[in-house]
Amino acid sequence: MKIILDGMGGDNAPFEIVKGAVEASQEIRDEIIIVGIEEQIKETLGMFKGKYDEQRIRIVNATEVIMNTDAPVKAIRTKKDSSMVKGLSMLKNGEGDLFVSAGNSGALMAGSLFILGRIQGIDRPALATIYPILGEKPSLLVDAGANAECKPNNLLEFATMGSIYMERVLGRRNPTVGLVNIGAEETKGSTTTKATYELLSKSNVNFIGNAEARDVPYGVCEVIVCDGFVGNVILKLTEGLAMNVLRRLKKAFSDGAVAKIGAALLLPKLKALRKEFDYTEYGGAPILGVKGAVIKMHGSSNAKSVKNTIIKGLPYANQNVVQIIQDAVEELEEITISE
Amino acid sequence: MKIILDGMGGDNAPFEIVKGAVEASQEIRDEIIIVGIEEQIKETLGMFKGKYDEQRIRIVNATEVIMNTDAPVKAIRTKKDSSMVKGLSMLKNGEGDLFVSAGNSGALMAGSLFILGRIQGIDRPALATIYPILGEKPSLLVDAGANAECKPNNLLEFATMGSIYMERVLGRRNPTVGLVNIGAEETKGSTTTKATYELLSKSNVNFIGNAEARDVPYGVCEVIVCDGFVGNVILKLTEGLAMNVLRRLKKAFSDGAVAKIGAALLLPKLKALRKEFDYTEYGGAPILGVKGAVIKMHGSSNAKSVKNTIIKGLPYANQNVVQIIQDAVEELEEITISE
Repeated sequence: MKIILDGMGGDNAPFEIVKGAVEASQEIRDEIIIVGIEEQIKETLGMFKGKYDEQRIRIVNATEVIMNTDAPVKAIRTKKDSSMVKGLSMLKNGEGDLFVSAGNSGALMAGSLFILGRIQGIDRPALATIYPILGEKPSLLVDAGANAECKPNNLLEFATMGSIYMERVLGRRNPTVGLVNIGAEETKGSTTTKATYELLSKSNVNFIGNAEARDVPYGVCEVIVCDGFVGNVILKLTEGLAMNVLRRLKKAFSDGAVAKIGAALLLPKLKALRKEFDYTEYGGAPILGVKGAVIKMHGSSNAKSVKNTIIKGLPYANQNVVQIIQDAVEELEEITISE
Repeated sequence: MKIILDGMGGDNAPFEIVKGAVEASQEIRDEIIIVGIEEQIKETLGMFKGKYDEQRIRIVNATEVIMNTDAPVKAIRTKKDSSMVKGLSMLKNGEGDLFVSAGNSGALMAGSLFILGRIQGIDRPALATIYPILGEKPSLLVDAGANAECKPNNLLEFATMGSIYMERVLGRRNPTVGLVNIGAEETKGSTTTKATYELLSKSNVNFIGNAEARDVPYGVCEVIVCDGFVGNVILKLTEGLAMNVLRRLKKAFSDGAVAKIGAALLLPKLKALRKEFDYTEYGGAPILGVKGAVIKMHGSSNAKSVKNTIIKGLPYANQNVVQIIQDAVEELEEITISE
């Protein structure tokens, strides 16, 4: 496999990106192609001389950079020699098998749509994200924010693509699928969730019914299906709340001599818990439904998360996930057309 | 003021309800009218003989009970002699100033609509809930689940009613209002949130812009505005996640001798944190937009939460909130009609 890496995307580019590539290449045999401003990438790679096999990390020059502040669609249309546009084009042309970027999320989604195109039959590609389940294997949340408004057939697509990704990339057999809803009963929720419930019941995914938000952090299902608005709320609220609770605990534990002693004894436990909420542990978020394997990393990714994303993302390319989704779509069409 | 209390609503009725009434009456001078199966209420009240002033707690007989499993609209239409229907009718007829119930939420919303009616000009009454902000004064979340689908003018109504309640009942001057959205910028979100942003900007509420879910637990705004689907997700996820983190911490802290010592030293801190997430501390959830002061309690309410709901809910009645909302609605109409 060949991994194409956006060397200029994210808050810590190019240093952490390049460092992550070096660290990944110490663990895998695949070639990594870093796309970006050649001079900068070369200089950064130079710092790691001797720590990687020069045959397996290559640089492709791209003179422009898409910034986080750039308007996504315009950036993709005008910055033709950016690391992102060039990387996606290389993926399309078969010069690589997987594209990984920590750059502008909107631009990455737009670029994937324009350059790679949607898988035929997929109406709305989605962003899927690992959702940390405390003490258990994580779930996958689709859509994590790409589509604020969704129709029932979009949600059915998310469920199907999420199940395939979960099975092929994360190794879960026949993963359970839950629909985020405001009640457990079939009749609860909005017009959209009610219609989606029906579609999912008839589909091939392992649908276990509605999932109330209360049960999501307990791992009530392995694939969490919702529109991108709700998905964003779930992800951001989890992040905000977890950090808030841990921060408050730390503060409470530093308050008074007795508590301080207690806290010193418990510090390793607190650290372990914080680690469970640490996105860098889990690898990135795949864009599902486009004709190519693209993974989005968090904008603040460090070398460790770059390394994890590359290594954990490899099956997205080598397990033929795009083709499997393509094949599954035909069955979906039968379900939705019969509506 | 006269408080009408649904003696039969909730998982712990009538005992905890009656006990809560007794405890409330020890702190306030207002009359409490408990509506329910007379025999049962009388027997329960008898257990507290001498602990309350018999002049200030009165029983009104109602022979039927609306169960949590009852279909809301049907229950309100057919169980005419239920504690809920009777209590709401008494509120309508001026036999009391505030109605408090831990019963079937859907039935309470439907009953409030049918029996009291909407305030003229309010399209969608809402359920508002206190949202715990760690270490700070809580916020108010509207809508907490009554309306799964909302139009921009509904969200404007929620913002207006929430601001009035926050000011009059919870004593916050000119409370800040945030719109839950998937990005801070004005242009982010769904068609609905974009249009709502415009309406709120032109309104009289103290609108501070979009609120990302990540910032909600930090108290980024005092009135959190969203549709009932998103509101339900925020509330339930907060509940599930907070309890999950605390449970995991407790488990981690009991794991190993050293940690156990640490945990023993920190137990008071953990308890204090758990208390911040305890809904029984905050009183109930008002139904806003109907012609009467109605407060919904959690189905599992105990005596303490019944007492808190009654005492903290009194300003809903004696601060004339319904009339103030009615007055504010006329201004809203000018904003939305000019659209």
